[in-house]
Amino acid sequence: MSQQERAVRTQAALIRAAAEMFDRHGYEKASLNDISSGAGVSRGALHFHFDSKAEVAFAVESAAARTLRWVMDGVPSKDVCALQCLTDLSHRLVQLLLWDVVVRAGFLLSCEAGSRVRTDLCQQWRSYVHGLVLRAAQEKALAPGVSQESVVNAVVGATVGFVVLSRADKQWLAARTVTGFWRLLLPSLADPRTVAGLDPAGTRSAHGDPGRTAP
Amino acid sequence: MSQQERAVRTQAALIRAAAEMFDRHGYEKASLNDISSGAGVSRGALHFHFDSKAEVAFAVESAAARTLRWVMDGVPSKDVCALQCLTDLSHRLVQLLLWDVVVRAGFLLSCEAGSRVRTDLCQQWRSYVHGLVLRAAQEKALAPGVSQESVVNAVVGATVGFVVLSRADKQWLAARTVTGFWRLLLPSLADPRTVAGLDPAGTRSAHGDPGRTAP
Repeated sequence: MSQQERAVRTQAALIRAAAEMFDRHGYEKASLNDISSGAGVSRGALHFHFDSKAEVAFAVESAAARTLRWVMDGVPSKDVCALQCLTDLSHRLVQLLLWDVVVRAGFLLSCEAGSRVRTDLCQQWRSYVHGLVLRAAQEKALAPGVSQESVVNAVVGATVGFVVLSRADKQWLAARTVTGFWRLLLPSLADPRTVAGLDPAGTRSAHGDPGRTAP
Repeated sequence: MSQQERAVRTQAALIRAAAEMFDRHGYEKASLNDISSGAGVSRGALHFHFDSKAEVAFAVESAAARTLRWVMDGVPSKDVCALQCLTDLSHRLVQLLLWDVVVRAGFLLSCEAGSRVRTDLCQQWRSYVHGLVLRAAQEKALAPGVSQESVVNAVVGATVGFVVLSRADKQWLAARTVTGFWRLLLPSLADPRTVAGLDPAGTRSAHGDPGRTAP
């Protein structure tokens, strides 16, 4: 293995170990010692890659943002109506948050950090939701009088809430939680002509290969 | 002023100063020095009341829980149907979170802390929502086939999400955000015979005296 390959592997191991520590103990309690020993490297090796805990957190958030973008872009949107696509995307997000500790830690860091954050995953998620609600309006798939802003707020608010609450109880990220949310919301927000064709549990593409990981 | 009165005042000042620090900088960055100087007392006076930052955080959460209970119990529920009461309560919660830094800091600490927490304000809020959804079912005010669990999850998930997102942008706690949420949700969850009588913006009692503070 070349020196460069080794450095890339060490960095990936540090990001994963840091995500596990942030996820388990929160940012405040995670120590650089725990992170380096979790990755099986020396404290010196950690400092070769990162200057501070804030730098490690930024790397976790950046890696999470890349994976989020990769997975979201992988959900088929062609020939799928925007509201179904939005439902599918939210199921994919929740699965990703359950399976991928880097995405979960990055998303929580980003939502909870206030001003520290430089990569805003919540904002990234919001822009996916916003784009699809806009497309739904263009498709005339929203019920008359429904405010696009309210739909975006309800979807982003609930998903962020589910992730934060999942800290104490993983059931908040169960597929049935998300399905229940859409079963409630879709009849109000979708045009009566479209609602019957929508599946609150997500289409097959929403529950794609759980093993699909970022490149 | 007696010594006891002085001690009570100092403790209240410390709790308020701590809440402001937690709210502004997050738990991790708030220092005991900043908290004591924010309260205008010496570090020794702080240590007379609290052993550690975790103890201060617990005091903030406990004070927030008391205020939450006091305000929620003050929202009239007699002669008001349960779904309107739930809508009113969520408006009251959001106002309280905007106005009262101790409640806001306590709620955020409680939602974000994972295992550190001993007073769970999210759980307390969930039990209010749960009780009212149960009452709505007994009043036969829920639409046929609506799952009580899904309603509780949607309301608790969205409100927790709004609070967390308000860290970066206070608009998430604006009355129009909450009204928009209920305008979307109520037509799906309420029985068609009740929905017309419900006000998503909250009745007058939801927007009671902003100056009402805990005793």
